[in-house]
Amino acid sequence: MNPADVKACVFDVFGTLVDWRGGVAREAAAFLQRHGRSAQEAGTFADAWRARYQPAMERVRSGERAFMKLDMLHRENLEEVLSEFGIDRAQVQAAELDDLNLAWHRLDPWPDTVEGLTRLKSRFAPNSNGNIRLMIDMAKHGRLPWDAILGAEVARAYKPTPDAYLRTVDVLMLSPAEVCMVAAHNSDLEHGAAQTTDLKPEGNWDWVARDLVDLAKQLGV
Amino acid sequence: MNPADVKACVFDVFGTLVDWRGGVAREAAAFLQRHGRSAQEAGTFADAWRARYQPAMERVRSGERAFMKLDMLHRENLEEVLSEFGIDRAQVQAAELDDLNLAWHRLDPWPDTVEGLTRLKSRFAPNSNGNIRLMIDMAKHGRLPWDAILGAEVARAYKPTPDAYLRTVDVLMLSPAEVCMVAAHNSDLEHGAAQTTDLKPEGNWDWVARDLVDLAKQLGV
Repeated sequence: MNPADVKACVFDVFGTLVDWRGGVAREAAAFLQRHGRSAQEAGTFADAWRARYQPAMERVRSGERAFMKLDMLHRENLEEVLSEFGIDRAQVQAAELDDLNLAWHRLDPWPDTVEGLTRLKSRFAPNSNGNIRLMIDMAKHGRLPWDAILGAEVARAYKPTPDAYLRTVDVLMLSPAEVCMVAAHNSDLEHGAAQTTDLKPEGNWDWVARDLVDLAKQLGV
Repeated sequence: MNPADVKACVFDVFGTLVDWRGGVAREAAAFLQRHGRSAQEAGTFADAWRARYQPAMERVRSGERAFMKLDMLHRENLEEVLSEFGIDRAQVQAAELDDLNLAWHRLDPWPDTVEGLTRLKSRFAPNSNGNIRLMIDMAKHGRLPWDAILGAEVARAYKPTPDAYLRTVDVLMLSPAEVCMVAAHNSDLEHGAAQTTDLKPEGNWDWVARDLVDLAKQLGV
């Protein structure tokens, strides 16, 4: 594929552009300590929360339930994680959970993210399972220079349902061959230093880059 | 209404933030001259094209036809304007019309737009009947610093259908009372120097500002 044929890049966000695990664990640590638990459990808490992400979206993808914003799925999943960790839901105020749920809106970008996006910005939009407000807050928090935010509400479908990609391409008024999907994973997201799988590219990808700045160089921008 | 209660501004775009009449007339002038007509007709041509804007959206609003992107409505309207101007459609290549249709993607901002939006940017998104790609192109052309682009495809409804506003508020996860709608008109858009109506505020508006910079001052940002 010729770099000049790429008219837009769309980006996976959680894991590729922002450190979801570190950001969620940081806020979970404070929450756990307030409830008499150890901050050491924060990484496991973040993983447990994230582990419910795909199954929750799968119920939407399968048609078992109607489309709803990721914020709402995260909130439901959080209640289940509390129970899994043996934290008494009745002892936690709803407002505190609402705030913890917003940890996903306050994730920090990786060190290469802002520079890479700025370079790639001559042609680029995001694509994410996140809802639009979540993406707006994240962009303001991390100074991410989006051209447009095409959250799951635009496609009303969750990746990897084909419509999630195809409707995004339609909104951009491009053909699939003109759009480059950027992700830091073969089929799922990074899971911290303990991760042992999905460490190198396994697909027949058009470009494999060390980071976003390297990708910008490979695309000639 | 207290300025501190405003969590987001959403903006009318055509007329409020960009000079649709001047931009369309500029490109229409070149088109008319290529087809043996006078550049002097360009303003009238722009007005005739715009005159078909509301009726075309009304067919969507009324349910007479399904939702479709504004770019597509503009393209259909353009064909009708050619006929109105006695230009033989058979003498014009489709590619030339496609390009003229993109004049709406290349509209220039008003002198106060970029400074005003930059000041207002601590809390703000757009709202427009334009489709998302149109708004992306316009933002890149005029360096408009959007937080998010909430084109009509997100609401899948055209203003002033209430859903066009209410779905935008829902996407922002705010209540209507927290969102300020910004427009340069009481109920319609500016129509050049010859305009004789809609020259001053006629509604019970929360704020009336001279320009966007003045609005930013009034909102304390």
